Amino acid sequence: MSEGLSPALQVALAYYRSWTSKDIGAAMRHLADDIVCDAPAGRIEGVQAYERFLGPFAQMLISAELLAAFGDETKAVLVYDTRTPPVASAPGAECVIVHDGKIVYNRFIFDRLPFEAARRAAD
Amino acid sequence: MSEGLSPALQVALAYYRSWTSKDIGAAMRHLADDIVCDAPAGRIEGVQAYERFLGPFAQMLISAELLAAFGDETKAVLVYDTRTPPVASAPGAECVIVHDGKIVYNRFIFDRLPFEAARRAAD
Repeated sequence: MSEGLSPALQVALAYYRSWTSKDIGAAMRHLADDIVCDAPAGRIEGVQAYERFLGPFAQMLISAELLAAFGDETKAVLVYDTRTPPVASAPGAECVIVHDGKIVYNRFIFDRLPFEAARRAAD
Repeated sequence: MSEGLSPALQVALAYYRSWTSKDIGAAMRHLADDIVCDAPAGRIEGVQAYERFLGPFAQMLISAELLAAFGDETKAVLVYDTRTPPVASAPGAECVIVHDGKIVYNRFIFDRLPFEAARRAAD
């Protein structure tokens, strides 16, 4: 499956497959220790902060469907849909930069509004 | 610039360059009449509904920066950041399917929360 994939896409897909299978530890091993992630709620710096961001979401994931995956030597983009208890369909996009086999930057895009609405409804 | 680009990516970029330069009419000519778009607020069907969705946003755009653009024969992904009066940085991702030179489907991802917050603050 990984033959012919660009170097950045191979890393991005390995990371994605780990976190969507709830193996957050394996996912984190594809990130540089000093990863910078621009997420909807703001900038996340460092792999530990990243794990606190993504881990809880990964744990509640019911399913994820990969819609698109492209990349070149240093950059890759994943687009997927997710299903979780609070939100039946929450698509996301991750645009990552890879150096030396690790993700060093991620622009993480998703709509926070349905999660906010679910939280308010639960309160 | 368009040499070497995949067919779907050429169409996606032409659409993107039109709407981000506020030429929404030219952008719509890259869409199939019966385009389906799954946007954060729900499904949009038909080019006229699409124009009502994207036109007002395009008109208030201050700037857009393309962060990633990839594609193959039928699918393309664009990731970009936008600057508008209500939101200084609002990244978006569009994952489009192209048939016969027109975009027939778009999965459009962005975070509605900062736009909601700006609207509430203005009220």
